[in-house]
Amino acid sequence: MRTQVAIVGAGPAGLLLSHLLWLDGIDSVILEARSREYVEKRVRAGVCEHPTVELLRQVGLADRLDAEGLPHHGITLRFDGEDHRIALTDLTGRSIVVYGQQEIVKDLIAARLKAGAEIHFEVSDVELHELTGDTPRVTYKDADGVVREIQADVIAGCDGFHGISRPSIPDSAMTVYDHVYPFAWLGVLVKAPPAHHELIYANHERGFALHSMRTPDVTRLYLQVDPSDSLDDWPDERIWAELHARLAISGGFALHEGPILERLLSPMRSFVAEPMRHGRLMLAGDSAHIVPPTGAKGMNLAMADVLVLSRALKALLRDNRTDLVESYSDTCLRRVWRAEHFSYFMTSMLHRAHDADPFQHRLQLSQLRYTASSTAAATSLAENYVGLPFP
Amino acid sequence: MRTQVAIVGAGPAGLLLSHLLWLDGIDSVILEARSREYVEKRVRAGVCEHPTVELLRQVGLADRLDAEGLPHHGITLRFDGEDHRIALTDLTGRSIVVYGQQEIVKDLIAARLKAGAEIHFEVSDVELHELTGDTPRVTYKDADGVVREIQADVIAGCDGFHGISRPSIPDSAMTVYDHVYPFAWLGVLVKAPPAHHELIYANHERGFALHSMRTPDVTRLYLQVDPSDSLDDWPDERIWAELHARLAISGGFALHEGPILERLLSPMRSFVAEPMRHGRLMLAGDSAHIVPPTGAKGMNLAMADVLVLSRALKALLRDNRTDLVESYSDTCLRRVWRAEHFSYFMTSMLHRAHDADPFQHRLQLSQLRYTASSTAAATSLAENYVGLPFP
Repeated sequence: MRTQVAIVGAGPAGLLLSHLLWLDGIDSVILEARSREYVEKRVRAGVCEHPTVELLRQVGLADRLDAEGLPHHGITLRFDGEDHRIALTDLTGRSIVVYGQQEIVKDLIAARLKAGAEIHFEVSDVELHELTGDTPRVTYKDADGVVREIQADVIAGCDGFHGISRPSIPDSAMTVYDHVYPFAWLGVLVKAPPAHHELIYANHERGFALHSMRTPDVTRLYLQVDPSDSLDDWPDERIWAELHARLAISGGFALHEGPILERLLSPMRSFVAEPMRHGRLMLAGDSAHIVPPTGAKGMNLAMADVLVLSRALKALLRDNRTDLVESYSDTCLRRVWRAEHFSYFMTSMLHRAHDADPFQHRLQLSQLRYTASSTAAATSLAENYVGLPFP
Repeated sequence: MRTQVAIVGAGPAGLLLSHLLWLDGIDSVILEARSREYVEKRVRAGVCEHPTVELLRQVGLADRLDAEGLPHHGITLRFDGEDHRIALTDLTGRSIVVYGQQEIVKDLIAARLKAGAEIHFEVSDVELHELTGDTPRVTYKDADGVVREIQADVIAGCDGFHGISRPSIPDSAMTVYDHVYPFAWLGVLVKAPPAHHELIYANHERGFALHSMRTPDVTRLYLQVDPSDSLDDWPDERIWAELHARLAISGGFALHEGPILERLLSPMRSFVAEPMRHGRLMLAGDSAHIVPPTGAKGMNLAMADVLVLSRALKALLRDNRTDLVESYSDTCLRRVWRAEHFSYFMTSMLHRAHDADPFQHRLQLSQLRYTASSTAAATSLAENYVGLPFP
């Protein structure tokens, strides 16, 4: 099999890249280890930045997002038992849309298949070959166990943090920056209407909590937990008791309980691999970098990466220009590091580290008060939250 | 001897407090362990915030500051071999004035003595008594070694971090927040014109450097050094070599060398004691809190403290109202913690910690780039730097 761009991974990054390339008349084939059903139900990110929404609109992928997504014009910082709203839209003129990553994946798969794209699900044993030559290849076993090969001009590694793309690059050709936070998130999806129409980020002495939502009927809730905790440590009663305690405010807060539909433990980690290109292999999204979820930046970074990548591949494959491929990594990494810093800032401001001294807690509180009361500081948070412009 | 307010310490805090009380018709006596000559030559802070300048003007103490101080409308962040100016005045409408703390002390002593104030220099064995009753006392030996006693309504502890006021409060009545940074500053005063008309804060891979000035003929330069270093580790040649290296920029930077008039090693520490009142003893300035010098906030916090304190003492001693004395600590501490956070932010962004991982260095660089390029982030830095309003 021969294509111009072999894309490893049918998450938001790989699927959007395939769509953008198609708009530019460039062929691609997507390989995905999981089934279509699995990736369409995989609950992950839920906040689309303004530039992400704009991009999806521009490329004809936002019909359902515009119909079903929940536009948000502010978020709430909850601390000291009180609410302080960051008025995103008043401060920046822009807003975010809460729309699950799995919904974007559904929309993208539908659009890609409608356009006749090749997406091979449930492949295994994916291996990348001859990355530094002009004719890289991908070998894999298809869903029936038959060994296949794709010859391509470029391979796009969009297979996430645990994928095979990044490990296919020799260690000597890559620098890794890594930071593991001393806490994890326990996330639950609850069949109950959200208790508030916007996201609430709570810094409580018992630890961080986040009140979010997926739809008008489904609440998404998160608790900071110990990274060594397992789901067994968190029976329903403990989850609810902790949520009620951490989300309490002086005026009272009527958190709606309901059946827990799904629960997930996520470690909190920052990770960047540089550069994002090795010969003809281009990394995009989580395969190259991850952020802790506090800033809601992961999927949005992936979207920016593949936009830059699609331009670079168009220049290479249609105009035989290598400049954008060569600058691809630097262009993306500037925005990646901005998001890494913002995510670190949000994470540090909102979580209670067990080993933090009382001095650090006082600094946190002063930072929260200042962020909530200074227009400049609130605007700085807001412009990062709604998303700085794509490159 | 009897007075209304016994003030321990003739630094900017104690002297200004005495002046403000005098304007309100309240008597005070100042005790100072050092000689007048010593305190008038003690080189410390040099940046007056906008609210500090305004306060000094309002109370008739700014004639020489306005004539000889150097108004600054911006500062420069230097990193990656390039300069990025933070346009303080364009961003906030306000400016700072570079005017040495010892000049303010000279002006204050002159004004106080002209008004007939009692300032006792070179006292020793100062002890505070009966702080929780209505008639506190101070005992001390005067310059001739004669034991004296002052009876007062209130004692103001303005004797700095190493003074006796704070240690006179029982440990059980105080909570201390403390943070020691893993570096120190080596500061030199150089007989040479400044190489640039504004302050330059440089984040260099060899460590932080600061280019500042005292007068048009005297440059003030600082280097981040190891906290275990002594002045013997830093002969002139090493100081100059390091300054040239850390202040280098791609376009070239002509740092002016000259005779080193004075050199000083300062540890970098954040410290807050709460509350700032114990019965009839009120702490103000460095006796209650210190900040690392990176944000130039120390003296300015002391000025804000004594302004709040003068109002509280006026209410107590003229109107017999205790409410402002009771809220004094909380009122001051909110601004103190803001300055603690800002100083921590500036210190963390600009210094290179030996134990920091490469991830942290990348975050620093991203934060610096963002601060230099976002109007919101630059305004946030600027509004803190020129000084948030006094309470």
